[in-house]
Amino acid sequence: MAEEVILLDFWPSPFGMRARITLREKGVEFDMREEDLSNKSPLLLKMNPVNKQIPVLVHNGKPVCESLLMVQYIDETWVRQSPLLPSDPYERARARFWADYVDKKMYPAGRTVFLSMGEDQEAAKKEYIECWKVLKGELGDKAYFGGERFGYADVSLIPFYSWSYALGKLADSNIVEECPKLAAWAKRCMQRESVAKSLPDQHKLYDYIMERRKKLQAQ
Amino acid sequence: MAEEVILLDFWPSPFGMRARITLREKGVEFDMREEDLSNKSPLLLKMNPVNKQIPVLVHNGKPVCESLLMVQYIDETWVRQSPLLPSDPYERARARFWADYVDKKMYPAGRTVFLSMGEDQEAAKKEYIECWKVLKGELGDKAYFGGERFGYADVSLIPFYSWSYALGKLADSNIVEECPKLAAWAKRCMQRESVAKSLPDQHKLYDYIMERRKKLQAQ
Repeated sequence: MAEEVILLDFWPSPFGMRARITLREKGVEFDMREEDLSNKSPLLLKMNPVNKQIPVLVHNGKPVCESLLMVQYIDETWVRQSPLLPSDPYERARARFWADYVDKKMYPAGRTVFLSMGEDQEAAKKEYIECWKVLKGELGDKAYFGGERFGYADVSLIPFYSWSYALGKLADSNIVEECPKLAAWAKRCMQRESVAKSLPDQHKLYDYIMERRKKLQAQ
Repeated sequence: MAEEVILLDFWPSPFGMRARITLREKGVEFDMREEDLSNKSPLLLKMNPVNKQIPVLVHNGKPVCESLLMVQYIDETWVRQSPLLPSDPYERARARFWADYVDKKMYPAGRTVFLSMGEDQEAAKKEYIECWKVLKGELGDKAYFGGERFGYADVSLIPFYSWSYALGKLADSNIVEECPKLAAWAKRCMQRESVAKSLPDQHKLYDYIMERRKKLQAQ
């Protein structure tokens, strides 16, 4: 059967980036459909009626929602190329822990730096920088978070590298570039075609973020 | 090698309940150690230095944190008995989606009903009830969320049944008991020894919650 793979996405979304990277790691051809989040498509509302959010992967008509679940689904479905999750259950739990950390700590802090002002933003800046420091500690001298191979935790985190230039400007610290080990890790990831093709230009993202903030401040 | 399995836990925790249920489903003997959350043990701080939270599973000296990751780790490590995640990647993604829904929607809403007052609590009550309605829709006429067998989504959700009596009192609606299909599902789960042994008595939990609220109100 011919595979039909559609990705309902929005270009600045770090969650969408995870799905793009994973599909490209696996060599899966897909139709990326850009959503207008102020006027969501009937397909998006039909495929993700509970959360109504992008990204949604539609594989042969069946939806998979939530980016980390999508990465796991893609990894488990197209198993022959580029395994992303380790085969050992303990190493798998560790990789999942760091991906979960990115979602529960890095994302909310980064989002608050992006969308808030004043005291809330100040507190979030500290948290955001602290997250990268914790991740730097976990990376240590390894090439990737899981060791020698690009894997699940890297896929989960690298989209936030594309956000780090703009968030760094807002937080007065580009922690990734300032830390040689994190910078080397990001460079190593960016050398992969799957990643380079899936992450938007940092300056384009910066313009988008500043535009959104300008609208928020005007409200 | 003899297995050493320690669970650092706190009896009212729905997350701890998930780990307890899963270990019992698998027939794994474990040493449950009750933590004093106002004075966390050195072992907890050593085993979960990032989040410093219970539950933590310590298996032969190695920690696994975050309850859903723990359930998956236990399922993948003790594979012979009671598989909880489906073998099909798509069904696995669905089970993970509903577990994720419980964590992202039901838990924050329930927590706010428990810990807040006034307008915040009123809004959370509606969200909390809405979550159960969405889950009722997903359950439909099935015996369990995944179909005929007790599985991952059930393990994720059933701890919130033990909370539903107290939260129902606060939210003026015991939605689980009022909906025959949810009530039948909960009863079916409670008939399993793994669940019955792992969930605290609803009235004991009610007393705990009311005591905590009284202290909050006094502050």
